[in-house]
Amino acid sequence: MADAKKMEAAVHAYVDGFARGDLDAIVALFADNATAEDPVGTPPNKGKDAIRTFYGNSLKTGAKLTLEGPIRLIESAGYAVFPFSVAVSMDGHAVRIDVIDTFRFNEENKVVEMRAFFGPANISPA
Amino acid sequence: MADAKKMEAAVHAYVDGFARGDLDAIVALFADNATAEDPVGTPPNKGKDAIRTFYGNSLKTGAKLTLEGPIRLIESAGYAVFPFSVAVSMDGHAVRIDVIDTFRFNEENKVVEMRAFFGPANISPA
Repeated sequence: MADAKKMEAAVHAYVDGFARGDLDAIVALFADNATAEDPVGTPPNKGKDAIRTFYGNSLKTGAKLTLEGPIRLIESAGYAVFPFSVAVSMDGHAVRIDVIDTFRFNEENKVVEMRAFFGPANISPA
Repeated sequence: MADAKKMEAAVHAYVDGFARGDLDAIVALFADNATAEDPVGTPPNKGKDAIRTFYGNSLKTGAKLTLEGPIRLIESAGYAVFPFSVAVSMDGHAVRIDVIDTFRFNEENKVVEMRAFFGPANISPA
């Protein structure tokens, strides 16, 4: 079973990783066989190499994350689910994207499945 | 494909259904073969009869829902995902529960899968 405190710490490490532009810190949160589907409905990035490439590109955008409410934690099912906003530039314009991520963890408290929920309606001028 | 405006309206109808104690209005949002897993990690309620029983019991608690941020809408994948708080009495004490629900919709804009994410860490005195 995953540990609630460690799942919560992983979410904060994820947000902090974006703040610092620390790719290694972000990738270290994931299990080797993890998947990252961002946004939901697009083909998932499968495995650590694909996840490193995906987050490398994400960090190049300069995106910064801010938690927008409590992290929902389900220890028995290994889930941390959290609302946040992203501040980023799109086509030269500062925008805010409202997102909810679901992180599913394994027993080693590594993320095995990440899904990012947002759509066009969630992108607004900053 | 589900329709973003109709998915958004369904979430508001869900919140309003709790406000009015309107079981029929809540059940009408679901497809016949829908599942409702609340909280995630417990056995899902499968099918409309089980869902009616589940929400009938929920309404008896007097729980009231308040949206706590934008509804994340993904038309292509048929998802509406939203943060909210629940005001309810547990063992005679007023509590607040912070929850995130994922609703997955079919092409008729009915909910086919509902999952409610929260755990003990998300329950606090109101």
